[in-house]
Amino acid sequence: MRQPVDLKKAFRLINHGPVTLITSAHGDARNIMAASWTMPLDFDPPKVALVIDKNAYTRELIEASGEFALNIPARAIAPAILKAGGSSGRAGDKFAACGLQTFAAERVSAPLVEGCVAWLECRLIPEPHNQEAYDLFIGEVVAAHADKRVFIDGRWRFEEDKLRTLHYVAGGTFFQTGDEVEAD
Amino acid sequence: MRQPVDLKKAFRLINHGPVTLITSAHGDARNIMAASWTMPLDFDPPKVALVIDKNAYTRELIEASGEFALNIPARAIAPAILKAGGSSGRAGDKFAACGLQTFAAERVSAPLVEGCVAWLECRLIPEPHNQEAYDLFIGEVVAAHADKRVFIDGRWRFEEDKLRTLHYVAGGTFFQTGDEVEAD
Repeated sequence: MRQPVDLKKAFRLINHGPVTLITSAHGDARNIMAASWTMPLDFDPPKVALVIDKNAYTRELIEASGEFALNIPARAIAPAILKAGGSSGRAGDKFAACGLQTFAAERVSAPLVEGCVAWLECRLIPEPHNQEAYDLFIGEVVAAHADKRVFIDGRWRFEEDKLRTLHYVAGGTFFQTGDEVEAD
Repeated sequence: MRQPVDLKKAFRLINHGPVTLITSAHGDARNIMAASWTMPLDFDPPKVALVIDKNAYTRELIEASGEFALNIPARAIAPAILKAGGSSGRAGDKFAACGLQTFAAERVSAPLVEGCVAWLECRLIPEPHNQEAYDLFIGEVVAAHADKRVFIDGRWRFEEDKLRTLHYVAGGTFFQTGDEVEAD
């Protein structure tokens, strides 16, 4: 059900501000964390900006490998997002602990997560000052994919609740992406 | 219906990724633009990151004044968001053209927009390399307010559609912030 997304349209996968799962790998290690603080940064070539705390194991893996992926989870795996956000991968494989399966990315070493509806494979653009002063990381999107049941002709088209993306609030609660509003 | 928001909780106003209206002012000039590419950058003191194109009049005003505001519009003013996103303030006052009323901020010169449900008053943290290389701006939130009908005890609580926040997709279409999902 996955199809490639034209890189020029990759920004649309996160333009609406969904919660993400950041995956990373280096050598035999891999990790996953939940992150709401991400945004598109450019169209072409597509770039993203994201915030990763200094204590995060994910940060070590991204700085070592220079790669990561943003996975956009569907509502059906909301419990796994909370688990991924509430524990550290230093203690053991978090994918197994969260009950998440993965598949191989095309262009990066970071694994991609099943149960998501979009995936952005990214290469880190090192910016040491931003990383140190603001925990702010910038990446170039080098491949993108989406579930063709909900991302159709370059646009999100949600119908079933279980395939909707999510927006994180606080305290274990999300909003699902709601109805379309035509403003014209 | 506005109440102050504790600065430590200001990030929650944009944590779910809503579309924003960026306002700015310098001398007699003021402007408004629509922006989806914003995110929280820190909790305390709260910071935000946002992307502003080199051609934007808003960018001139922010660089000159060192201040801006993020206004979080409710669904009821969706048409005005599109107008604000589709024209330049260099040609004349965009607030009037969009049919938007404003009120004075507490700590910055940028006006705040009626019809919104949250407002973050920000001071620019100059980062010339980010601004030049990535169109990326960083601000510290110095005051925050929210509509107490929908932001209650530090949490978004949406009921009526017209007061829901919005997430921008493409082509004049938004998603409204949807139902709460409890994942615990």
